[in-house]
Amino acid sequence: MASIIRVDQIAACEGQEVTVQGWVYNRTDKGKLVFLLVRDGSGFVQCVAFKGDLDAALFDRLVRLPQESSVIVTGPVRADKRAPGVPGGYEIGVKQIEIVQEAADDYPMALKEHGVDFALDHRHLWIRMPSQWAILRIRSTVIAAIREWFDTHGFINMDTPILTPAACEGTTTLFETPYFDEGLAYLAQSGQLYNEADIMAFGKVYCFGPTFRAEKSKTRRHLTEFWMVEPEIAFCDLDQLMEIEEQFVTHIVKRVLRERLPELKSLGRDITRLEKIEPPFPRISYDDAAKILQEAYDATDDPEKKELLKFEWGMDFGAPHETELTSRFDKPLLVYGYPTAVKAFYMEPWPGRPEVCKSVDLLAPEGYGEIIGGSERMSSHDLLLQRLHEHQLPEEAFKWYLDLRKYGSVPHSGFGMGVERTVAWLCGIEHIREAIAYPRTIKRVYP
Amino acid sequence: MASIIRVDQIAACEGQEVTVQGWVYNRTDKGKLVFLLVRDGSGFVQCVAFKGDLDAALFDRLVRLPQESSVIVTGPVRADKRAPGVPGGYEIGVKQIEIVQEAADDYPMALKEHGVDFALDHRHLWIRMPSQWAILRIRSTVIAAIREWFDTHGFINMDTPILTPAACEGTTTLFETPYFDEGLAYLAQSGQLYNEADIMAFGKVYCFGPTFRAEKSKTRRHLTEFWMVEPEIAFCDLDQLMEIEEQFVTHIVKRVLRERLPELKSLGRDITRLEKIEPPFPRISYDDAAKILQEAYDATDDPEKKELLKFEWGMDFGAPHETELTSRFDKPLLVYGYPTAVKAFYMEPWPGRPEVCKSVDLLAPEGYGEIIGGSERMSSHDLLLQRLHEHQLPEEAFKWYLDLRKYGSVPHSGFGMGVERTVAWLCGIEHIREAIAYPRTIKRVYP
Repeated sequence: MASIIRVDQIAACEGQEVTVQGWVYNRTDKGKLVFLLVRDGSGFVQCVAFKGDLDAALFDRLVRLPQESSVIVTGPVRADKRAPGVPGGYEIGVKQIEIVQEAADDYPMALKEHGVDFALDHRHLWIRMPSQWAILRIRSTVIAAIREWFDTHGFINMDTPILTPAACEGTTTLFETPYFDEGLAYLAQSGQLYNEADIMAFGKVYCFGPTFRAEKSKTRRHLTEFWMVEPEIAFCDLDQLMEIEEQFVTHIVKRVLRERLPELKSLGRDITRLEKIEPPFPRISYDDAAKILQEAYDATDDPEKKELLKFEWGMDFGAPHETELTSRFDKPLLVYGYPTAVKAFYMEPWPGRPEVCKSVDLLAPEGYGEIIGGSERMSSHDLLLQRLHEHQLPEEAFKWYLDLRKYGSVPHSGFGMGVERTVAWLCGIEHIREAIAYPRTIKRVYP
Repeated sequence: MASIIRVDQIAACEGQEVTVQGWVYNRTDKGKLVFLLVRDGSGFVQCVAFKGDLDAALFDRLVRLPQESSVIVTGPVRADKRAPGVPGGYEIGVKQIEIVQEAADDYPMALKEHGVDFALDHRHLWIRMPSQWAILRIRSTVIAAIREWFDTHGFINMDTPILTPAACEGTTTLFETPYFDEGLAYLAQSGQLYNEADIMAFGKVYCFGPTFRAEKSKTRRHLTEFWMVEPEIAFCDLDQLMEIEEQFVTHIVKRVLRERLPELKSLGRDITRLEKIEPPFPRISYDDAAKILQEAYDATDDPEKKELLKFEWGMDFGAPHETELTSRFDKPLLVYGYPTAVKAFYMEPWPGRPEVCKSVDLLAPEGYGEIIGGSERMSSHDLLLQRLHEHQLPEEAFKWYLDLRKYGSVPHSGFGMGVERTVAWLCGIEHIREAIAYPRTIKRVYP
């Protein structure tokens, strides 16, 4: 009996008789030959059926076989440079074929162009198309690479809760749910505060799970539900954090290049841009970034561009500012030392400059903008308490968080990286909704 | 300069001068000697300070140093079989010590017994204690082992959504949240239905994330938020599924034994029970399980036990039934072929016996009960539609799910494994609330 193989193993099976189980993605008829492009989840392979090799009735069914029909194909693997597919370069001569199910012939996502809303309504079928399949395979490798790096660098995976009590940063961007007799619970926007407790027990930790923001943003960079990895490290300052970010991001890029080159190529990604990602990454202060933006503003005569680049010290960066800054570098850019006023309450102040905090954002190249936000955290109990009051946050809800500064406070730092933004950058795609299987936006919670 | 090491690397550093950064877990004074048990997140190590080696004022502070104070200790590593700690067997002679922060001396979780509610109120500190630290380190290894097995067996990690539209199995056990102008969204109880769409694109997939059940259960086996891994496999029947479960569970047990032996021992776990876990696992049908329970009922004269064991064909198992069944085996027990009426609507009927379905539960030994529930899924469109109507489920909400049976339906199977139940079994602990960092129960959503 031929052994069942996966299409991504086909190069090792040349000359052997194999069985592939999958679905018909495309069919071309040429008289006595039928070419089936079969996908099995691991790849796409061309299967060639010759009329003389098969029972006449079966061949007749093949000629009319609808897209998405499920099949089990058996036959010899032959090298053929012209054979389409992913990885491509091999075909299977069909000796036997079992039609598991003949698909209905009204397949909604047939091989033609569809509008985005139609495609999203049929996301459960859209993911079968090569572009979406490639993106989500790359995503799974990004996730594996993230975990691999932390698991091999002494980090402990700690799952922080999704259902949380009183909110840390205002409730307007939180989803809420009634929680038995305990009032409302809120879906977590971050596991960071819990991570800060966890490092005091485990030294280095990361949480990695879904994150929720009920923001009414309709940009191509926002989802209401997205995945975020958040490492936190005891005895770590801002400089050490930036080194970790460089190593970590480089590791992800390299693993994706190693394992998902066919998928990147099938997406038309310019690989040379990714091959340049190596530590060290350029580092500039927020102050210097503000100067660069001022220079760019002065240098242009285009009034539209002037309007977009308008900036003054104290503002947070918008997308045009990030694009301007990153256009000057081939690698991700680390911008550190943001104004305290635009960042969260828990960041350590810059020594001697309380208006600046020890924060760092990592901006991806090619206009993809911020994919990581991080900082050194405040370690002083009294200053933290003062900040809570300044931000009018309820002290009682933060009692446990304050405890961390009473019982063995240490310098510590951490960051959060958004998975979908990272995947979108690596894949070179326009909108992050394609970087997750079932995107959730303010207008969509289906399927 | 001495290099900074982690305590779990100490055996490799014998004779070297090292630096350890951590917290004082315990202190014993013996005249001119102070013994500090220092934990750094990776382990616990004894550090011995001799009065003659240190500045007098510093030594004086050490003698009074409160538990949880953060310290940086430098000195030579010496082997000493009696030295306590995890892994233990080594101590550090203190040549230098920097007190990063002297902890407040009212540490709530000081080394004495506390009630469970008090401990849970201080979960952010409780996790620093050796037992909780050990359990959560084992948990992180269980998670890594789960992912390792799937990632090395051709599975693609697909993140299924938490925010979902109309519920699949009634809304009474669902958390709900207002979702912009879209009405209510519900927190997912399972990613399975999405996984079934995903396998038609990726062949073999798994999702792994938090899962929510608003059940009013107060048992030691229920949380409202828990982590579940759910693989789904195309072209896979019930027998193949049971083989996968055996291989998968064995892999987890073996990796935990290999990497977390000191932690298991510190918990007093009987390792020999875990060392017996090897495929094949015993398999019995539900019918045979019912007979075994009847025999056990007949064999006992104890009226209390009779009451607990009362059972008739068609019932689901309760905890006493599971305990009775698993007490006969050293390994996890696979029970297959449950009555259709006690299982979910999407399970494939047993050929020729529609009252039975192709389901399988994996029951852990030692009374830990069900940790995996799985089945072959229904592949017929028409039968699935009939089931939806029988269960009075809204056809419209399942339109996309029905599509999967129209466009290339294949035999397929999958299961869900609860992480906390698995960790509780491996650690030999009573209650699953200790198997997650911040447990959520019907009475608790803090900290």
